[in-house]
Amino acid sequence: MTKLGDNLKIDSARLWDTINETAKFGGTPKGGVRRLTLGPEDKLVRNWFRKACEDAGLEVHVDALGSMFALRKGRDMSKAPIGVGSHLDTQPTGGKFDGILGVLGALEVVRTLNDAGIETEMPICIANWTNEEGSRFAPAMMASAAYVGDFTTDDILSRKDIAGVTVGEALDEIGYRGDVAVGTQKFSGFVELHIEQGPILEAESKTIGVVDSGQGVLWFDGKITGFESHAGSTPMPLRKDALATLSEIVLATERVVGNIGALGTIGEAVIANPSRNVIPGEIAFTMDLRSADAGKLDAIEKGVRDAIKEIAAHRKVDVAFDKVWHKPPTHFNKDFVNAVETAATSLGYSHRRITSGAGHDACNLNNIMPTAMVFIPSKDGISHNELESSTQEDCAAGANVLMHTVLALAGVASK
Amino acid sequence: MTKLGDNLKIDSARLWDTINETAKFGGTPKGGVRRLTLGPEDKLVRNWFRKACEDAGLEVHVDALGSMFALRKGRDMSKAPIGVGSHLDTQPTGGKFDGILGVLGALEVVRTLNDAGIETEMPICIANWTNEEGSRFAPAMMASAAYVGDFTTDDILSRKDIAGVTVGEALDEIGYRGDVAVGTQKFSGFVELHIEQGPILEAESKTIGVVDSGQGVLWFDGKITGFESHAGSTPMPLRKDALATLSEIVLATERVVGNIGALGTIGEAVIANPSRNVIPGEIAFTMDLRSADAGKLDAIEKGVRDAIKEIAAHRKVDVAFDKVWHKPPTHFNKDFVNAVETAATSLGYSHRRITSGAGHDACNLNNIMPTAMVFIPSKDGISHNELESSTQEDCAAGANVLMHTVLALAGVASK
Repeated sequence: MTKLGDNLKIDSARLWDTINETAKFGGTPKGGVRRLTLGPEDKLVRNWFRKACEDAGLEVHVDALGSMFALRKGRDMSKAPIGVGSHLDTQPTGGKFDGILGVLGALEVVRTLNDAGIETEMPICIANWTNEEGSRFAPAMMASAAYVGDFTTDDILSRKDIAGVTVGEALDEIGYRGDVAVGTQKFSGFVELHIEQGPILEAESKTIGVVDSGQGVLWFDGKITGFESHAGSTPMPLRKDALATLSEIVLATERVVGNIGALGTIGEAVIANPSRNVIPGEIAFTMDLRSADAGKLDAIEKGVRDAIKEIAAHRKVDVAFDKVWHKPPTHFNKDFVNAVETAATSLGYSHRRITSGAGHDACNLNNIMPTAMVFIPSKDGISHNELESSTQEDCAAGANVLMHTVLALAGVASK
Repeated sequence: MTKLGDNLKIDSARLWDTINETAKFGGTPKGGVRRLTLGPEDKLVRNWFRKACEDAGLEVHVDALGSMFALRKGRDMSKAPIGVGSHLDTQPTGGKFDGILGVLGALEVVRTLNDAGIETEMPICIANWTNEEGSRFAPAMMASAAYVGDFTTDDILSRKDIAGVTVGEALDEIGYRGDVAVGTQKFSGFVELHIEQGPILEAESKTIGVVDSGQGVLWFDGKITGFESHAGSTPMPLRKDALATLSEIVLATERVVGNIGALGTIGEAVIANPSRNVIPGEIAFTMDLRSADAGKLDAIEKGVRDAIKEIAAHRKVDVAFDKVWHKPPTHFNKDFVNAVETAATSLGYSHRRITSGAGHDACNLNNIMPTAMVFIPSKDGISHNELESSTQEDCAAGANVLMHTVLALAGVASK
């Protein structure tokens, strides 16, 4: 095996061009991208990606859930490839970097290796995972979850969007129901390049985030049942106000997660039959709790449940609070994380260890194979928003770290 | 003028039957009524009411805003009638007494006078005011407000519901845009029978509330502009959470009105683009503040505005907070209030002076004519709710007080 010099670099302008070229598939007037999974724009970007991979000499196949795999041969084909990639679908009002950078960065790595005539020991395989975002079909990250065995293929194929279209029907509609069974493409490990989607790297002026963990996530559905009554004739002490109850829950959740050092969000809250002169009697709400530490996750759930119980009692209302999803924290593979860190150091990029706030396909894959992630800064920490932005320089830095991590993990074949 | 004995009573069973008969127009499975103003169910109850009035020998006309007036001639037609009535529209999930009792109680008074062959000196006119509730079109009590000159007819005709339908279009749709100009029907005074919609009469075991005042009302439209960001990757201290901001405003409003002894309600709150893993970036909300004391009303507005300013500053968000309605406290006419009190006493009903918590068409009418109201108890103080309930006995008591008040004010013609 040959050790390659750190002077091998990807083509920054070519990577930037592909990002902007693919952003036209679902591009919005504000410069974002609306490319819901398995929709017409997703078909266009998939066709573009397949051709680009084939032009780069890769062999492309598609599995039964539409995930795309593009294989670059290695010297030793008895070994499973090192996987790279992410997803090409976006949020309804998403940006042009979330997920896309990981797939196009991987393509740029392959193109660079081709141009330099470098053969790796192990093969390399670029993956485009179907429906990472979860905006059209639930759950998010469904294809990688099925890949690791959390769901059966048939279960996922039967999931419906809001219009009643199943995943299977949507795959057929765009011609991306592949003939390869889910899980057939094996990997020796996986590295995902992604934007941070948070403000930490930018705030600390670091170019690279060496992602060593991913937050655990708890999702809850809540419902407050107070009593609707007249805003003008119900004395304050006799009210059973669902919105005042929710307000206490929101602020208590802030206190609980603040004390423990975790995250808590009430993202949805809907008053039943709202009217400006009626005291809200019923509110449905959701809660999202996150921590990279399983113990903290347990502690914030307990803290929030205790607070809700106390609030419901003194407000004399009922609060239902049901857990609908539990994703334990992810601890990425130490060797893979070290490989990312070594690559960033060798290339001279400022970097820090970081926890992924969002969930990623890599968090699922880590359940069954060594996995790591590379983050680059997000302008103002913004993501899931058309204002999402990263610089050409940072995108290139991320792809360079990805390339040198992959070379270290896959090995360079002797000439 | 003849003084009639207190033994003249309305027909309790007939009144109760009409209440239950009209409750079928928009009746809900839970026993409430959903009869939004100028909708198809409102058309049906209006048609029923028109026929019932005509069957009772009354002359019905409709004004340009759809308010209905049913005239019973008096001996002296040079005098404007004593008005009685209320409204037939309901809240989206309303009951079968709010407003309805006042119109059907007035009809029952006329039917009783007809049966007894009693002629009054002054004519009597039953009114059904359009859109008292304000659930479909703002403002509430719009027809009586236009009647007293607070709005022009054209202004009200152009108000739109949430679907973009104007009052004018809705009137045409149900055939109730009348040809009589608003304000044409004059009154010598007005008496409105209504359920209390609060818990006081029931708590004190009083049958009749002699309403001597009405709370002032302030309505506000608010909008919080924070910043949408990812629930998993935005540290708590960097968030601009619109829902957490609203939560502080809700609880601060409770404190302010509690300290001053007034009422405050946030009845509507809508998160823009809600998603369970996105921090709410924008929320529109409404606020309703009430007090029977003009000074207290000023004080709570100031207290709430100060609190919002402080909350917006420390949350680093923008809060727009605009007053959309200001109704000063109402002080009903002393002679009319005394007439109500005398009738209740003569009939032997337990009674007390009371302030109306809700706004009523009578509060508008009081601006330009002597006006008073009669309240009866609401079970558990509940209103604007399908569980709204009053007893047959109390409804009859209210109608009897209404009748003897009207007879005292209109005078009984000598035979």
